[in-house]
Amino acid sequence: MVNPNFKIAAIDGSARAGVLSMQRHVLNTPTFMPVGTRGAVRTITSKDLEELGADIILGNTYHLMLRPGEDLIQEFGGIHGFVDWKRLILTDSGGYQVFSLEPDVDDDGVEFKSTYDGSLHRLTPEKAVDIQCSLGADIQMVLDVCPPIPTEKRVLEIAVDRTHKWAIRGRNHFLSKEKSFENERAQFGIVQGGLDRELRRISAEQIVDIGFDGYAIGGLSVGETRQEMIEPMRISADALPKEQPRYFMGLGDPAGLVEAIACGVDMFDCVWPTRLARHGTALTMKGRVNLGAARYAKSDDAIDPDFDLSPASRWSRGYIRHLLSVGEPVAARLLTLHNLAWIIDFMKRARASIVQGTFDDFQKETLQIWG
Amino acid sequence: MVNPNFKIAAIDGSARAGVLSMQRHVLNTPTFMPVGTRGAVRTITSKDLEELGADIILGNTYHLMLRPGEDLIQEFGGIHGFVDWKRLILTDSGGYQVFSLEPDVDDDGVEFKSTYDGSLHRLTPEKAVDIQCSLGADIQMVLDVCPPIPTEKRVLEIAVDRTHKWAIRGRNHFLSKEKSFENERAQFGIVQGGLDRELRRISAEQIVDIGFDGYAIGGLSVGETRQEMIEPMRISADALPKEQPRYFMGLGDPAGLVEAIACGVDMFDCVWPTRLARHGTALTMKGRVNLGAARYAKSDDAIDPDFDLSPASRWSRGYIRHLLSVGEPVAARLLTLHNLAWIIDFMKRARASIVQGTFDDFQKETLQIWG
Repeated sequence: MVNPNFKIAAIDGSARAGVLSMQRHVLNTPTFMPVGTRGAVRTITSKDLEELGADIILGNTYHLMLRPGEDLIQEFGGIHGFVDWKRLILTDSGGYQVFSLEPDVDDDGVEFKSTYDGSLHRLTPEKAVDIQCSLGADIQMVLDVCPPIPTEKRVLEIAVDRTHKWAIRGRNHFLSKEKSFENERAQFGIVQGGLDRELRRISAEQIVDIGFDGYAIGGLSVGETRQEMIEPMRISADALPKEQPRYFMGLGDPAGLVEAIACGVDMFDCVWPTRLARHGTALTMKGRVNLGAARYAKSDDAIDPDFDLSPASRWSRGYIRHLLSVGEPVAARLLTLHNLAWIIDFMKRARASIVQGTFDDFQKETLQIWG
Repeated sequence: MVNPNFKIAAIDGSARAGVLSMQRHVLNTPTFMPVGTRGAVRTITSKDLEELGADIILGNTYHLMLRPGEDLIQEFGGIHGFVDWKRLILTDSGGYQVFSLEPDVDDDGVEFKSTYDGSLHRLTPEKAVDIQCSLGADIQMVLDVCPPIPTEKRVLEIAVDRTHKWAIRGRNHFLSKEKSFENERAQFGIVQGGLDRELRRISAEQIVDIGFDGYAIGGLSVGETRQEMIEPMRISADALPKEQPRYFMGLGDPAGLVEAIACGVDMFDCVWPTRLARHGTALTMKGRVNLGAARYAKSDDAIDPDFDLSPASRWSRGYIRHLLSVGEPVAARLLTLHNLAWIIDFMKRARASIVQGTFDDFQKETLQIWG
């Protein structure tokens, strides 16, 4: 399997510094993927993402298949052409958002109503592949079943079983189309199993047996505590092939990130840094700072005085606080740029510590501030 | 009067191509000032304005005195320090917005309630100078009385008379502080008189008699037709000294701009281009284009295919239309950047035609599309 080409450049404990080479772009791992839900990371552009040094962004199949629809996006040359983004795009399968709508599920697939206009839609493992092919994703995710936490064991078992069966169908369908992709596209499988260690192991084995280009840990970071999350994550990661990329779906806070990196996970996405930004909160070397607070009104400090690489460093906390207090929309933009720059730099620092063999210290320092 | 230093580089009919030299920055006229109501031009930053080539922006004294207050802004080194903007700032006196609240007016000044918290505030000609000094405006406006159109003649006469008396007090107060400004600040007087030709002439004479660093035409473009506006504007402009800058307050549509430039007006501000942008409408060489319309869904054209200088030219009409239809906030930003770039370029084209002696053609072409 040459697609994607993943090389591990350094290992420190279980943490890995890797290089993921796809036809369109080469990136270093661990990596963070900003989330462009509706064809844009809220408040910013593809040019901003280039300037931030983002290597890969995530698009939500659920939203894009409904608005503007995969056929229209395909006419523009896929998401890359539509949003004018030249680096990598990973799309989810749509499943996660569909399951949050409590849809009708059967062995064949899942039926749901559009949140936009109430119209009825159906997603199957094959359809999820077709849509993501139309969207032109560099990396696509197989359709899975993601139950909430907590969930009773019987329901979890059904979810793991269905995830397995759907993964076989999704993989077969992807491979039946693969020749036309000229090796530029990859498909990742997803491990489920909730917080149940045994089910995590079973699910990982089933998915690895099918053989994907990379593997994701799904169904975690959905409301459980970080402590509850770590063991099922570790079990999932340990059961995955070392030589292929591992992706934790929906994780983006620094403490969670270092714990996952420590377990050997390479790729992450989350709306957390950008959602915080839109609510007035900045990521800083000293922790979260809510710039909406009155105590920052007179502050001439930068958003994070200890972080020189912020694209918003020329504006003061006092100015941002003012923009927030009068509802100027550019406040959300500046904090989004800042938080993304901060988390992208955080991943670079994590990688550097792995290369230098000091990841342990990096993990401890991060947990002291963010744990 | 060396402040501001205004030189006329070329004349074509009554239209002028000028150079306004202030200590902080030198700019070419005719010039358009983007409006930064609450300390930001909505959706964009001072860095964006630099990249757009904006030379001067307008700040609203009414909003800034209430949020965050002129004292706080002064602590940051005025608006320049607060928003990190190194070129020119013109502030209005606050009067225009105060009068829209139907306040209590007497000979001394005007009393009004804050739209933010209902608190009571008072503005006098002296206070308007003090506040604008604290804000650190390069060019400040004297407090005037701006009645709506239509207004009965008796009310207009009172407004013109009060505008005159307040202009004397405002100018005296400004000059009493002027030494400390080291010639870096200017104050403009304002001509009122509604649509009444005689009152326009009288008001202009009164204001010119006082002697300001520049002169504004106020009280027009407040709901009357363009044809109704032209004659009172021409009379006001004709009565102003040729060697000083002339500013039409609150005008920003291409047809209005060429008519005013034809009358010898040099400076303009308006929320029109940026407000249109936030409502999904782009300025183009062929006129207004409402990109929210379904017919643009599949368009791969740039926002304005005939305008190469747009900072948003790399995104298609179809993509912008999608962002508008799903409510992504970055659509407003991209159209704001586009419309400001377009109108700033429009002013450059107007100036070039004056220098080349072809302003007449420029005016005719503009009115064919925008008239």
